Amino acid sequence: MAKDPLRIYTELQKGFSKDVKADRNHELLGELYQASAGFLGKLDQVELKSMVPGKQYFAFTLKRKLSRAVNASLFGDYLNKWAKLDKAITSKKFTGWDSDGITRLLYSAALAFCCYIDLTKDGDQKTPGTFFEYLVGHLFARTLGINPETSLPVLNLDMDTNLPTDFVFNLGKNRPKFHLPVKTSTRERVIQVWAHQRVLDGVYGTGRFLGTPVILTETKSDKRKREVIEICLPDQWRIYQMHIAQLKRVYYLDVPVVYNNLNQVFPPISVKPFGDFFFEADALGA
Amino acid sequence: MAKDPLRIYTELQKGFSKDVKADRNHELLGELYQASAGFLGKLDQVELKSMVPGKQYFAFTLKRKLSRAVNASLFGDYLNKWAKLDKAITSKKFTGWDSDGITRLLYSAALAFCCYIDLTKDGDQKTPGTFFEYLVGHLFARTLGINPETSLPVLNLDMDTNLPTDFVFNLGKNRPKFHLPVKTSTRERVIQVWAHQRVLDGVYGTGRFLGTPVILTETKSDKRKREVIEICLPDQWRIYQMHIAQLKRVYYLDVPVVYNNLNQVFPPISVKPFGDFFFEADALGA
Repeated sequence: MAKDPLRIYTELQKGFSKDVKADRNHELLGELYQASAGFLGKLDQVELKSMVPGKQYFAFTLKRKLSRAVNASLFGDYLNKWAKLDKAITSKKFTGWDSDGITRLLYSAALAFCCYIDLTKDGDQKTPGTFFEYLVGHLFARTLGINPETSLPVLNLDMDTNLPTDFVFNLGKNRPKFHLPVKTSTRERVIQVWAHQRVLDGVYGTGRFLGTPVILTETKSDKRKREVIEICLPDQWRIYQMHIAQLKRVYYLDVPVVYNNLNQVFPPISVKPFGDFFFEADALGA
Repeated sequence: MAKDPLRIYTELQKGFSKDVKADRNHELLGELYQASAGFLGKLDQVELKSMVPGKQYFAFTLKRKLSRAVNASLFGDYLNKWAKLDKAITSKKFTGWDSDGITRLLYSAALAFCCYIDLTKDGDQKTPGTFFEYLVGHLFARTLGINPETSLPVLNLDMDTNLPTDFVFNLGKNRPKFHLPVKTSTRERVIQVWAHQRVLDGVYGTGRFLGTPVILTETKSDKRKREVIEICLPDQWRIYQMHIAQLKRVYYLDVPVVYNNLNQVFPPISVKPFGDFFFEADALGA
């Protein structure tokens, strides 16, 4: 009998934080992908009406439930590449890989478990959110070769406290530190990402932390009409980037069309597919 | 037969934004208070175990449901004062009133409808949140004698867009503008309030907008154990106030003990009961 994705997730959850970059976490994330993909493979798909130029979406369906929207050109059966990607990451040899291939694989792994939860739980947004943090946090840790922290000491004259943070990766003295917020989608809550970057800049000095949020998608489905839209606030992003703090990159698994255009304006905001990270991680601090 | 609170709320919702300070909104908010208080008056109360020093809490109960925590020393039958407070506000004559009395009245009006929703709906957090925005937005508008806006023009060289905002009140040229975020509770989402203030400071100039968020309470109940705690992050508030932006006041209907202490540290954060606002509104811009 196939393994239950939720049982694998529970095991992942129990041990994840002890050693984020651990081999065991990589295995469990792979098993989770496999079990979820197996579950979805037996289900029907329904096409959704995409209001997003140039993108097609469908949803998995079980009984009367519909999963979140799945980007048809990104989602596929890439299970056999999961272990291979890990070899590339740990050996830093990406021969035969390109950014698109990595993005598609990771999009598919992320969406598989998210859709499984959509179809087997009622209104559970927390589990997909936490799972996606595990997936991205682990991949960052494995790429950078160090584990993240989620709290930093503040020593500011008579103030001596700890600041809770998103994942931060400290590469050591005189090297960049990464500030990694991870979200399945952002909408108007995105201002938090810039605000946390501002706090890091203020407390530790501008430029010490590279803000590199990773976001799954900005799609929203109207399940009754079976329509998919992307909710984007590009003008607000520009105002936040000018007036709150500077993010180094914004990575997406499914890059929204409107945000992609922010690469072209001045001052630009660098919005990229997550696959790019694996090719530029070393260069980002330069 | 008594009026159904939800029907009154629907009517309020339909017309509220057309003229926030309107007499009709005041009547409807009063009717809503009356109908909700009438509903609660017939219910049993259960005492909660308060983990907050110096405060007692209870909850209303209906069938197997429990309302949110109600502060026993703030909640009371002040229905007959609703119209009188309005006379004081519109005539700017507060003889016979003090801050405590106003805070208790407004706390009771706010909690009455929130508890009604807690007991008649499942997991509806949106309705109490929107209702509380109506209540506080209306009272600010009535006090300042002008209606709020929820969007501001940005004219910044080649950038010409609109910035969506919380309620902002523009008293006119050379006079203060108020930035009024309204929340039933904040927890870690509070960073948004400072971030929005930072955007206003950045786009329009520091000091032009007085940030005066109004928050209902920071209590959280464990319904199984019937315990009440206050969730407070005072060290983070201090870091936000030093590194993101400066809030002029933080008003509470039920001031958390820990945040009240922020008045005593240096640099202080001015945390006050909402009743204080009505006595200092004119002086805040000075």
